[in-house]
Amino acid sequence: MKVPKILILGAGYGGLMTAKGLQKHLRPGEAEVTLVNQNSYHYITTKLHEPAAGTSHHDHARLSILSVIHPHRVNFIQDQVTSINTETKEVTLKDQSEPLSYDYLVIGLGSAPETFGIKGLLENAFFIRSIDSVRMIREHMEYMFSRYAEEKKDELITIVVGGAGFTGIEYVGELVDRMPELCREYDIPLEKVRIVNVEAAPTVLPGFDSDLVSYATDYLKNKGVEFHINTPIAECTHEGVILKGGEEIKAATVVWTGGVRGNKIVEDAGIETMRGRVKVDGQLRAPGHEEIFIIGDSSLVFPSENERPYPPTAQIATQQGQFLGKNLVSLIRDGKMDTFAYHAKGTVASLGRKEAIGIVGKNSKLMGMKASLMKKIIELRWLYLLGGISLVLRKGKF
Amino acid sequence: MKVPKILILGAGYGGLMTAKGLQKHLRPGEAEVTLVNQNSYHYITTKLHEPAAGTSHHDHARLSILSVIHPHRVNFIQDQVTSINTETKEVTLKDQSEPLSYDYLVIGLGSAPETFGIKGLLENAFFIRSIDSVRMIREHMEYMFSRYAEEKKDELITIVVGGAGFTGIEYVGELVDRMPELCREYDIPLEKVRIVNVEAAPTVLPGFDSDLVSYATDYLKNKGVEFHINTPIAECTHEGVILKGGEEIKAATVVWTGGVRGNKIVEDAGIETMRGRVKVDGQLRAPGHEEIFIIGDSSLVFPSENERPYPPTAQIATQQGQFLGKNLVSLIRDGKMDTFAYHAKGTVASLGRKEAIGIVGKNSKLMGMKASLMKKIIELRWLYLLGGISLVLRKGKF
Repeated sequence: MKVPKILILGAGYGGLMTAKGLQKHLRPGEAEVTLVNQNSYHYITTKLHEPAAGTSHHDHARLSILSVIHPHRVNFIQDQVTSINTETKEVTLKDQSEPLSYDYLVIGLGSAPETFGIKGLLENAFFIRSIDSVRMIREHMEYMFSRYAEEKKDELITIVVGGAGFTGIEYVGELVDRMPELCREYDIPLEKVRIVNVEAAPTVLPGFDSDLVSYATDYLKNKGVEFHINTPIAECTHEGVILKGGEEIKAATVVWTGGVRGNKIVEDAGIETMRGRVKVDGQLRAPGHEEIFIIGDSSLVFPSENERPYPPTAQIATQQGQFLGKNLVSLIRDGKMDTFAYHAKGTVASLGRKEAIGIVGKNSKLMGMKASLMKKIIELRWLYLLGGISLVLRKGKF
Repeated sequence: MKVPKILILGAGYGGLMTAKGLQKHLRPGEAEVTLVNQNSYHYITTKLHEPAAGTSHHDHARLSILSVIHPHRVNFIQDQVTSINTETKEVTLKDQSEPLSYDYLVIGLGSAPETFGIKGLLENAFFIRSIDSVRMIREHMEYMFSRYAEEKKDELITIVVGGAGFTGIEYVGELVDRMPELCREYDIPLEKVRIVNVEAAPTVLPGFDSDLVSYATDYLKNKGVEFHINTPIAECTHEGVILKGGEEIKAATVVWTGGVRGNKIVEDAGIETMRGRVKVDGQLRAPGHEEIFIIGDSSLVFPSENERPYPPTAQIATQQGQFLGKNLVSLIRDGKMDTFAYHAKGTVASLGRKEAIGIVGKNSKLMGMKASLMKKIIELRWLYLLGGISLVLRKGKF
C-alpha cells in the first residue's frame, strides 16, 4: 500500500500549525510528512516590529523549528522553494538536485510587500517581514544615528513609516519607546528626532473602532509622532519620500508597512490569484486543484459573497493550520473533509511596551495596560499551541 | 595686581593633566585657569580600539570632565576652537561671540589622520580618533553584517585595516575577539569573515622587538587575519582598497590607522610646524612664542639632535601635562622653569582581551596574560592620576 506524501511549504503560523497537527493526529506510517522552510527557525511575525525598532532582540521573535517539530514524525528540510509544478506534482528547491514529489501540497509561503507601484519603494525602503530584514532596519537606523554626531544632518535622525495600518502603528509605538535610549546612546537631544507616519487612506488603523483610533493617535502625537493621513507617497528616493502634492520629507530611514501581497511562487505555478493571493474553497483548496491547500497570507477567505476578505493575520493563519492538521488526517482516512470557519477572537495593536488598544470578542474595547496585557497573553498562547507550557516558559517574555 | 590668564585648549591626556596640576598646585587667586574642550568628556584614546570593534561600550572609553575638574578652580567651557590669534593673544570659539584672551596658552588639540595623500582615504575610510568616530565604525560594521543575511556579498563582511602600527594591531586584536559574537548575532559562519591588515612599511609594529612582533603576528594569523606587509594602499574607493600593484580588496569597512599629523588650527595660527606638529623647546614652548606651550600629539620632542622624535603617545602627553602643571606655577611665582625630560616606562599593545605584547622599562619583554595585565594596570593608573582611587573604582574595568 502506498503511503501518501504530504508536503508543507513554509513554517509560518499556518504551515507550522499544520505540521504540528499532523504530527499529533497521524498514526505512525499513515502518511509521510515533509516541511520545507528557508530558515531553520520560525519567526513570530506579530513581534517583528519590536526588533525592527530595537526594543527587543530578534531572538525573542524566532524559535527553532526542531524545538517544536519531531524529526521522526515530520521531515524538515531547510531550503528555499523555487517553483511548484502542479502537473507533475513536484516542488523544486534551490539547493536540492531532485525535486520533491507530493500527493497533497500545503502552501503557506507567506506574503511579499505590496508597493502599489510607488516609484523607488522597493529599492529605497525597508520592510518589516523577516528576522533578516528587521535586524537590518535596526542596524541601519543605529548607523544613521551614529553618523549624526559627526554630520549633524537632520535627515539622519528622521524616520518615515509608510502605512498606518496594524504593523505601521505598532512599529511607530515601538520607535517612540526606543528613542530616549537611542538618543542617550548617541548623545542626541531627543527633540531633534522626527518620526513621521504617512498614510494614503483617510484614517489610521482602518477597521478599528474610532474611539480606539483616537486613543492611539493621541498617545502617539503626544510622544511627538507626526501624522500625514490621507496623503499618498508619490515616490521614495534614497533621500526620503516625496508626498503627493510635492512636499519632500528627507529621511535616511524609510520603512514601508503599507500592505502585502501573496508570494509570487504561487502565481508562477499557474494557480489563479488576486494580487498573488488565492481565493480558496471551503476546504482551503486552490480552485481546480483538489490536492493543493493554501493557508496564511497566500490565501483569501471571504466571510460571504459580498463582503471583503478577512485581512491576512497570524490569527486566521493559525486557525487554518489547526483546521488543516485535522482535516488532512480525516481526508486520508475517510476521504471526508469539514468546512473551514474563521472565528474572530479580537485584535490587539500594541503601542510600545506599556500601551495598546484592542477589541476582544466582537465588540469589547480595551485600552492601555489591559490591552497591553492581552497582547502578551495572545503571544504566549501561540507559544503554548506550538510547544506547550515548556515553550512558554522558555521563550515567553513576562 | 593683574591675575594671569592661563588658557588650555583640549582636554586630552596633556591638557587634562595640565589642568589637574594647576588645580592642585595653584593657590586661590594666583591665576585664572580656563579649559576649553569640544565635548563635555575626555576620551581615553588608548581604549578607543575597543568600542570601535564593539568589544566594549564607548562609555568605558570616556569620562566626564567635570568629574575630575573642580569648576571653582578651573573654568570649563564646552566649545570648539576655531582659530588662535598669537598677535592679539586671543582664541576664537565656535559658539561664543567674544574671543577668549590669554597670557599663557597651552595647546593640546591632538591630532588628525595623516593620509599621506592616498586618494579617496579621507572620503571612504573610517578613523579611530574620537567617541563619535568609533561609535560610527561599530555601527557601520554591524549594519554591513546585518545586510549580509539578505545580500550575501562577501565584501559586506570584509574589514580592511590600513596600518600595522600600534592602533592598527590593537584594533585587529579586538576584531578577532569580536567576530564569534558578531557572527552569532547575524547568523553568519565565522569562516566567511575576512580581516585584512595592510601596511606600507616592511614590518608590523615598527620599533617593537622582533620576538614580540612574531608573537603578535603568529597569534593574529592563527585567528585568520590576513597580512599584506610592505604593501602600500594606492587608493581607497567606496568599494574597498586598491593595493599598489593593482590588486583590489573589496571591503565595505575600511579603517585607517596609518598615521596622525598635528591639528590644522596650530598651523593656521602661523606657528612653525612639521606635518602640523610643533618642534618645542625644553620648556615645551613653540619657537618664537614665549607664552605658548604645545603638548601631546601637536608637539614634537626629540631625544637629541640626530634622533627621530618620540612617537605621539598618551604616555608622553601625560608626562608633558604633569610637567607643565608644575612648571607654569613655578613660572608665575618665580619666573623660573625646569626642562622637560621624557621617561619611557615601556609600551604594551593589546591583542584583544586576553593577549598582549609589551616592553616594560627599557628591555624587559612581556607576552600573553602578563602583558595583558600590564595594559590594564596602565589604564587604571591613568584613572588614578586623574581622579584618585574613587575614579579607579568607578570607571575601572577589572
